[in-house]
Amino acid sequence: MSLLDNIKRPTLLLDEQKCRQNIRWMAEKARKSDVTFRPHFKSHQSAVIGEWFREEGVTAITVSSVGMARYFRDAGWNNITVAFPVNLRELDEIDELAGKIHLNLLVNSPVVISDLAGKLRNPVGIFIEIDAGYHRSGLTQINSDLMHIIIDGCTRSNKLEFHGFLSHFGESYDARSPDEIKQIYSHNVNELQQIRCSLKPGQQGIISVGDTPTCNVLESFTGVDEIRPGNFLFNDVMQIEIGSCTTDQIAICLAAPVVDLYPSRNEVVVYGGSIHLSKERINSDGHEIFGLVVKLTENGWSQPLEECIVTQLSQEHGVLRLDSATMQSLKPGSLIGILPVHACLTADCMKRYLTLDGKQVSMFIRS
Amino acid sequence: MSLLDNIKRPTLLLDEQKCRQNIRWMAEKARKSDVTFRPHFKSHQSAVIGEWFREEGVTAITVSSVGMARYFRDAGWNNITVAFPVNLRELDEIDELAGKIHLNLLVNSPVVISDLAGKLRNPVGIFIEIDAGYHRSGLTQINSDLMHIIIDGCTRSNKLEFHGFLSHFGESYDARSPDEIKQIYSHNVNELQQIRCSLKPGQQGIISVGDTPTCNVLESFTGVDEIRPGNFLFNDVMQIEIGSCTTDQIAICLAAPVVDLYPSRNEVVVYGGSIHLSKERINSDGHEIFGLVVKLTENGWSQPLEECIVTQLSQEHGVLRLDSATMQSLKPGSLIGILPVHACLTADCMKRYLTLDGKQVSMFIRS
Repeated sequence: MSLLDNIKRPTLLLDEQKCRQNIRWMAEKARKSDVTFRPHFKSHQSAVIGEWFREEGVTAITVSSVGMARYFRDAGWNNITVAFPVNLRELDEIDELAGKIHLNLLVNSPVVISDLAGKLRNPVGIFIEIDAGYHRSGLTQINSDLMHIIIDGCTRSNKLEFHGFLSHFGESYDARSPDEIKQIYSHNVNELQQIRCSLKPGQQGIISVGDTPTCNVLESFTGVDEIRPGNFLFNDVMQIEIGSCTTDQIAICLAAPVVDLYPSRNEVVVYGGSIHLSKERINSDGHEIFGLVVKLTENGWSQPLEECIVTQLSQEHGVLRLDSATMQSLKPGSLIGILPVHACLTADCMKRYLTLDGKQVSMFIRS
Repeated sequence: MSLLDNIKRPTLLLDEQKCRQNIRWMAEKARKSDVTFRPHFKSHQSAVIGEWFREEGVTAITVSSVGMARYFRDAGWNNITVAFPVNLRELDEIDELAGKIHLNLLVNSPVVISDLAGKLRNPVGIFIEIDAGYHRSGLTQINSDLMHIIIDGCTRSNKLEFHGFLSHFGESYDARSPDEIKQIYSHNVNELQQIRCSLKPGQQGIISVGDTPTCNVLESFTGVDEIRPGNFLFNDVMQIEIGSCTTDQIAICLAAPVVDLYPSRNEVVVYGGSIHLSKERINSDGHEIFGLVVKLTENGWSQPLEECIVTQLSQEHGVLRLDSATMQSLKPGSLIGILPVHACLTADCMKRYLTLDGKQVSMFIRS
């Protein structure tokens, strides 16, 4: 039976070839810039996909939770940065993990560094997160007193080794052109450099930056030592909207069964809702868009169909506005493809992938 | 150890007492109106919580997928309506289930009724979905020809029994007062009545309606035979915004560890993001709100703290804007509570509950 005939319910298709190309492309860019490529595994959360990175020479990774770090430790990764501020309620788990692998943590507060110094039995690397403009988490230049307390805390402890400064340029998600993205990168890297230069030589550590928009768009990574993009291996409608990838680079697609057709309003209802795609949306010319629509084939999917979009999501329902030709090609039981707005959240909702050659690919499941 | 001390990661707290009160209240309203109470179990998706409904006399339920129907069949429910248009790719699963329980399906198309008639070996009940104004799925008065084909399809088959008309008044979610909600109810029930009256006596079937806003607000359910609310057992910030419940009726709350404090902007960052709460939001006075903030106690949680809201969600990060007093009461490692915008999606993200007396409550996991 064919790939598509076998699909009964909303299914997250993964184009392994495109995905491996995205991984190889980023690994090569990092090599050319002579920066460490420490990809963020929160986007795919899969040990199987992790191996595709290993084949490109990756040995160090980033995750967003202690549980996810444990999952990838079990899959053989022994150099992991948890790029999320330390959760003091998980100190025991952190300590246990630090006894087994090289673990880096994110610390933005003297309270936390003091707790870590007092309670950890195993060594960890410490990054200070810098808020270079996103205003989610991290310290800014005016917090240099806090940075010094954290670094001093590391110096005084034989368990905590200061590794440097880490930043997520999340404001790149508000950009809408490669030029805007490059400006954000330059501005933020300049800020990180200034902060590092204010420290004594020998204390300065590395500069680690992330986010897919800048890593997709920049040709070379000047001024930094490490990049941590995650989403780039899949890409999605958000990255298209930002202008950081082409539709050819999108490597996942939700296959959704058509259940109802409403020709009078050029809409179909599919089995595929917010518990499958997530409720992430973009605003485009005043319209909310929850995904772009593609035709599925046995070898993958088409370019996005012009003016065909997901206009509404309920828990299990998706409403798609289509052109007449696409409408006429469908009937109840047909399959249609949806390119997600935010690939990481869709993957997290779906909890597994199906490759185009029919392999089931499993993921980390939160406990 | 206390309930709160035991919490390490984002945890969905369930106030069993409030939840049971919400269930009892709705069951009593249904009894007084002499309508069948067929609650929608997609909101909680839990066999344990299902038993709390059984204790209130519920014997028939609604679900939103075939997989969920199978899960509740395994939990002893033998009268289930799948309130989602039939997915022809699951005919085998539907047929198998129909051989074991009384199963009702939603059919809006002649193609589907003909496929069901030709392929099912076991009997099912058939509802036609009416789109009374929501414009998601369902037929309208102008589709009376389609309705007749579907009903005739049932009449001619010895497997398909026409049960009546089912509608979800989803537009009640755009209402912002009880009066608006009551108007929607009257208008839509009137439409459903007209459709039913156009059929021959003996063919007319029942009228089944759902949605929490109308079921919460209406004192009595005139003109219908069955109600199918789901969300009401939890309620959430969306229901508050609509004006369909009080904050006292909200029965779930995400406990989130505080990981970073930013006093200069009165914000804290918590471990609790869009993979925990879902990315559902409301717009209130031009601000996007992803949740309301409460203080947690060993017995539950406070009223929402004034002007304290979740302003931003990333995959694992939540950003909360707080008042100064609340800011000062917190430190890294503190726990804070978040009332979700959309309880059903939060429950689906979290996949389990923790009751205030420390019981873990499991849920349906999609295969």
